Amino acid sequence: MKKKNYVIYPNVKIGSNTIIEDYVILGKTSVNTKKKDILKIGSNAILRTGTILYTGTTIGKNFQSGDHARIRENNMIGNNVSIGSNSIIECDSKIGNNVRIHSLCFIPEYTILEDDVWMGPGVTITNVMHPPCPVFKERGKEMKLKCIKGPIIRKGAIIGAGTILLPGIEVGEGAFVAAGSVVLDDVKPHTVVAGVPAKKISEIKDLVCDPGIYGKGEIYSWRSSLFK
Amino acid sequence: MKKKNYVIYPNVKIGSNTIIEDYVILGKTSVNTKKKDILKIGSNAILRTGTILYTGTTIGKNFQSGDHARIRENNMIGNNVSIGSNSIIECDSKIGNNVRIHSLCFIPEYTILEDDVWMGPGVTITNVMHPPCPVFKERGKEMKLKCIKGPIIRKGAIIGAGTILLPGIEVGEGAFVAAGSVVLDDVKPHTVVAGVPAKKISEIKDLVCDPGIYGKGEIYSWRSSLFK
Amino acid sequence: MKKKNYVIYPNVKIGSNTIIEDYVILGKTSVNTKKKDILKIGSNAILRTGTILYTGTTIGKNFQSGDHARIRENNMIGNNVSIGSNSIIECDSKIGNNVRIHSLCFIPEYTILEDDVWMGPGVTITNVMHPPCPVFKERGKEMKLKCIKGPIIRKGAIIGAGTILLPGIEVGEGAFVAAGSVVLDDVKPHTVVAGVPAKKISEIKDLVCDPGIYGKGEIYSWRSSLFK
Repeated sequence: MKKKNYVIYPNVKIGSNTIIEDYVILGKTSVNTKKKDILKIGSNAILRTGTILYTGTTIGKNFQSGDHARIRENNMIGNNVSIGSNSIIECDSKIGNNVRIHSLCFIPEYTILEDDVWMGPGVTITNVMHPPCPVFKERGKEMKLKCIKGPIIRKGAIIGAGTILLPGIEVGEGAFVAAGSVVLDDVKPHTVVAGVPAKKISEIKDLVCDPGIYGKGEIYSWRSSLFK
Repeated sequence: MKKKNYVIYPNVKIGSNTIIEDYVILGKTSVNTKKKDILKIGSNAILRTGTILYTGTTIGKNFQSGDHARIRENNMIGNNVSIGSNSIIECDSKIGNNVRIHSLCFIPEYTILEDDVWMGPGVTITNVMHPPCPVFKERGKEMKLKCIKGPIIRKGAIIGAGTILLPGIEVGEGAFVAAGSVVLDDVKPHTVVAGVPAKKISEIKDLVCDPGIYGKGEIYSWRSSLFK
Repeated sequence: MKKKNYVIYPNVKIGSNTIIEDYVILGKTSVNTKKKDILKIGSNAILRTGTILYTGTTIGKNFQSGDHARIRENNMIGNNVSIGSNSIIECDSKIGNNVRIHSLCFIPEYTILEDDVWMGPGVTITNVMHPPCPVFKERGKEMKLKCIKGPIIRKGAIIGAGTILLPGIEVGEGAFVAAGSVVLDDVKPHTVVAGVPAKKISEIKDLVCDPGIYGKGEIYSWRSSLFK
């Protein structure tokens, strides 16, 4: 029989029917975590090879992590969420239900991803306009919250591969940020933006499905029905 | 004596003279893999720390993987291939001989990399124009193949660091995509493209070697001779 | 009692009060390292889960590595340095004191980062203008040094998230490269550049702190005092 090849630290609550693969670390502590902090993972999770989940984070049902994914402390994560291989979720973020974050992404502190958000590989999100912000070192947590602004990505928005989001950006409901964009300004709901800096190039309702499987405007209508 | 610090699952065929470093996983299965699937690795491989190779993939001779590289199921990989640290190869791709993929790259399903392709660090390739494509969930594999289009990168092409390739792009033989490009259109053979979106800026034959080691037009002529 | 879950190879000198987390590899060798090479780590280091440090590298006091960070051979690294999760430092680079490299960064050979440099997540640095440079294979080390040019990033410069630096770039003292830049030309001291290709958009002295915590021109004055 294969020997146990993973580490579960104290204060970890794992739901039923969870798969824990090799070299996984659960309940890791840091200088920010407290003794009473708990890592909670809902039922039916698949925690792939080398996944690292810190304590103080709560994760819903049907969670999946890719190989070597890493999620730090004090995150609230909904049901049916998938975090891709080599992706990093820092602390204090909120991730809704049915969110898919692909591989090699970086999600910093104070990010809010609402339900049904989809994010391609290689996305980098920022949260400080003038890094490294002095108030981190000089003036403590209260000022820190004035300075750090994670993004809000609204329900069902799609963030294309390799996108970079500047601090505090709001991406509107059902919007689509094309691959390779650098987003400096808020993105209006149901619009399509692209480029550096990202500008509106279309609306979701005008997108055309090249292979003709869906009609104009139907491309993303399936998504809202999917999550009802 | 140091204890064995890696895991080899069933159905793994490893060629002679292979080096397996710490925390390597060989023959990993997924929901897509079948019991009869085999991971084949040719002779003289170096599998560096934390490498993960799924079953159902075939790899030629003299393979090298960087630390924490990850290759999923059903890939066909030629001889003398090197996959860099933290890079990810998803399923169902074809990688020719003498291909070098550097660190922190993302290669999605249905990518074709012909012989002698070189890829810098941080490259992100996409394969769906309107992600996440509905047909994945709604209409099964047949429709999926109409919708997903990986890139074809022709023999000897060079993809610079941090490049993002949109779905279905063809990069011509011996072409050079400069670092930081976002490639929306096919790239003609032996041309140099750069920018967002990538535009032709030169031809390979006009590139000048700054330190004067090679004459104009000679910079890449060595490559074709190298692989004969 | 938890069993030892890491590997320390020969010729590793670790300072007092060092924390070594699970699955860490210290003193890893490569084809480039010699038997007499040593990995030296100063006191008070925190080596997080899955960190890989090759032999032949020297690291100062108070070092921190993120989970799955990787540093290859023959680097000289100062005091109070932090290398983020999943970041890669290749060989033969010099990193000064108080340098912070965030997550998912790629730092190639012959990079020089002076004291107090700060680098955001997802930065990719290059060192060869026409990769893969023929002289690597054909003409040996002496010619190689004519061809490879790592960047010099001067004291206190700030490199924003997702930035790509072309080979041999000099980023001046206290300069700020905005997130998402592709840097083709040298950056003058105390200037702010942005875009693809990166152009000057401001000077550090003219940056305005949106929440009003700092006055105009004061935003980065704290940094020089911090490191005195």
